[in-house]
Amino acid sequence: MTNLHRHAPLRVALVGLGTVGGGVIRLLETNGALIARRAGCPIQIVAISARDRNKDRGVDLSPYEWVDDMTTLAARDDVDVVVELIGGADGPALTLARQCLNAGKPFVTANKAMLAHHGLDLARLAETGGIALKYEAAVAGGIPVIKGMREGAAANEISRVYGILNGTCNYILTTMEKEGRSFADVLKEAQDLGFAEADPGIDIDGVDAAHKLSILASLAFGTELDFDAVATTGIRHVIAADIAEAAALGYRIRLVGMAQNAPVDGPDGGLFQRVHPMLVPLDHPLAHVDGSLNAVVAEGNFVGRLFFQGRGAGDDPTASAVVADLIDVARDEYGDAFAMPVAALTPHQSADAGARLGRAYLRFRVKDRPGVLAEIAAATRDAGVSIESMIQRGANQEDGVLVAIVTHAGAERCVRETLERLSGSDSLLEAPMVMHILD
Amino acid sequence: MTNLHRHAPLRVALVGLGTVGGGVIRLLETNGALIARRAGCPIQIVAISARDRNKDRGVDLSPYEWVDDMTTLAARDDVDVVVELIGGADGPALTLARQCLNAGKPFVTANKAMLAHHGLDLARLAETGGIALKYEAAVAGGIPVIKGMREGAAANEISRVYGILNGTCNYILTTMEKEGRSFADVLKEAQDLGFAEADPGIDIDGVDAAHKLSILASLAFGTELDFDAVATTGIRHVIAADIAEAAALGYRIRLVGMAQNAPVDGPDGGLFQRVHPMLVPLDHPLAHVDGSLNAVVAEGNFVGRLFFQGRGAGDDPTASAVVADLIDVARDEYGDAFAMPVAALTPHQSADAGARLGRAYLRFRVKDRPGVLAEIAAATRDAGVSIESMIQRGANQEDGVLVAIVTHAGAERCVRETLERLSGSDSLLEAPMVMHILD
Repeated sequence: MTNLHRHAPLRVALVGLGTVGGGVIRLLETNGALIARRAGCPIQIVAISARDRNKDRGVDLSPYEWVDDMTTLAARDDVDVVVELIGGADGPALTLARQCLNAGKPFVTANKAMLAHHGLDLARLAETGGIALKYEAAVAGGIPVIKGMREGAAANEISRVYGILNGTCNYILTTMEKEGRSFADVLKEAQDLGFAEADPGIDIDGVDAAHKLSILASLAFGTELDFDAVATTGIRHVIAADIAEAAALGYRIRLVGMAQNAPVDGPDGGLFQRVHPMLVPLDHPLAHVDGSLNAVVAEGNFVGRLFFQGRGAGDDPTASAVVADLIDVARDEYGDAFAMPVAALTPHQSADAGARLGRAYLRFRVKDRPGVLAEIAAATRDAGVSIESMIQRGANQEDGVLVAIVTHAGAERCVRETLERLSGSDSLLEAPMVMHILD
Repeated sequence: MTNLHRHAPLRVALVGLGTVGGGVIRLLETNGALIARRAGCPIQIVAISARDRNKDRGVDLSPYEWVDDMTTLAARDDVDVVVELIGGADGPALTLARQCLNAGKPFVTANKAMLAHHGLDLARLAETGGIALKYEAAVAGGIPVIKGMREGAAANEISRVYGILNGTCNYILTTMEKEGRSFADVLKEAQDLGFAEADPGIDIDGVDAAHKLSILASLAFGTELDFDAVATTGIRHVIAADIAEAAALGYRIRLVGMAQNAPVDGPDGGLFQRVHPMLVPLDHPLAHVDGSLNAVVAEGNFVGRLFFQGRGAGDDPTASAVVADLIDVARDEYGDAFAMPVAALTPHQSADAGARLGRAYLRFRVKDRPGVLAEIAAATRDAGVSIESMIQRGANQEDGVLVAIVTHAGAERCVRETLERLSGSDSLLEAPMVMHILD
């Protein structure tokens, strides 16, 4: 074929050489010719940098110039774009991002923590310079949901955006579901297999999903990104019995990040952002998202429900998203990072979660003695919670007795009040578990 | 809020005022302020045109200048982009497209038939003029799959792209499945409800899905679009018993458009494009795509399996895709229509479908008399088809007896030879049904 490239090569500096960095190198080596056709020019790594030069990464780094001091990259004329795969909300990643954007250097990152905390500041810098700040890999790995929200669904007023945003949690929950095993047991296995970090908190406590959700919410609603307003609960306290009860009721448990926006003058107006294990009905597509897959749902006033599913983590899928961003940069097809100028984003007002209407699942572990059921029933009654079903299952005496309740639709504040009413009770062997039911 | 629009309004001429055209008008009226923030400028319809000015379309057209002669639009300086919603592969739509693109006027269309037949010619014109030719609404309605393939998955070598591309067929098949009714009965109902056209051939014979598939294939593989090479079979001959047999075996029947590309020097090398009812295993996401929804799967060498689902037709979802294209035009974020210059697309060589390996479902309606099963079994044996299961179900005598076979994995040519061997047989009451099984 004749050379149809219309541009000089796009010269990339790659910073951070963990698994994703290695994936980007392998991807550009493997699919280089195809990418050059699609991008209109070859995409070439010209410089690499990481903390430790001598670590074996299973990738041949000899073709690339090693740079010890990454802070020199922003000023280099022979670098067209910097890819940051260091991670971390602050520190070297943020320093690098600011340097590059201030210097007018396009910047591609997979760093959800940094975006959740500093996304608007970075977007402002990119806007001032008229350059690209791209981050498809930061949310849902290889699934093009940033593009889907920023561009694909751009004609819509989005009422809610939600999904399964953490593959580790989904792997643990679906393995518990399929094999009837305990959280601790499956987490241990996931760590042994390398699917979960030795320090798993950022995943299993929902923080990673919350980072991603705050980014999606800003894109979906045109509101200022506000990570601190995400109410976050992880999956540590989901027990096998919860999964069994949910299954018996026709649900599966998934860690769902959900953002919803309603006119601020309405009863539950404002922006609602929450990461929480939820009961998902079997006829909802999220119930069928298994293993380490991710999925995102966006509900728009014209498009209806859009559903995206794919691999949300791992070196190869994440590299796919990073290089998609580079192709956009090469094609000169990019614009405001958060879909509009930062100044056009509306400051948001957080919704009162207590006013939200919905059904909930409550599970108590209680002492096996007379009167406990009556105590719980009285608390729900006094809090104004209407019970749809209540199941008490015998258990071995040591662990007490499990009582599971599904409520009728009602305000969340009533559920909260139920828990407050019971909080002093010595009948409870541990804090109750509350999960909301996806409608 | 201060006026943050950085551009003058994008002035749109809308041609074709059927349901989708009405949807575009309603969408721009309803979400206009939000769209202006996202697009960087207001998107304004300045001229409209259709065949019949006096038809009641349920939309107030008085704010817009009516243009009798659409051929004047290409030359108008006060029109920035023309949206074509007339439909039809040739005729006025094609004339308009050529006029606009020749005149350097950006062009947005939902016209899959025109693109399937003339897409490359039109893309060449757009390329010459350096202007946008956008067509998100042409495939899978509101789901941003054109963007997903052209941009989201652009870093990947795609091995196959496939999906449920026609909502009418999926509605009919899933209604047959849920209610155990016949094709003719459900089609009639769909027509009465307005879900199916009075002349349903283009949908139920798979032609519409084939148009869309040929577009997806070109984007996915970087090959020249070739609609004529799509082998197409519709759903007319699917009977309730097929659906029941498939269910008993753990499958659902879906009309699947599939394109696959393999190196031409391999045994089944080349481009394979087929629209055909298939047996989809229950653990595949396509098995859970119900009603009039559409879905597209792309399998890439780094991203793995991407799955997109949503509303594939209807005025509102289709309008969502049309306006997404307009936003891309307003943002100046567009490029080659088929992801690379037309000259960079590779001429494709069609794959030999006979060499494809896979499992198949064969169903025969035969006379209820001795020796028929032996005759079929002999034909499969002589053709080299290995049988995994064979079921004969008694039926009323008038309709004969149904024999359903599932084969082991083997070359498709052997299945074809089986049918050829049986083609002269007077035991068969009608042509056999063959459906391949999605792996």
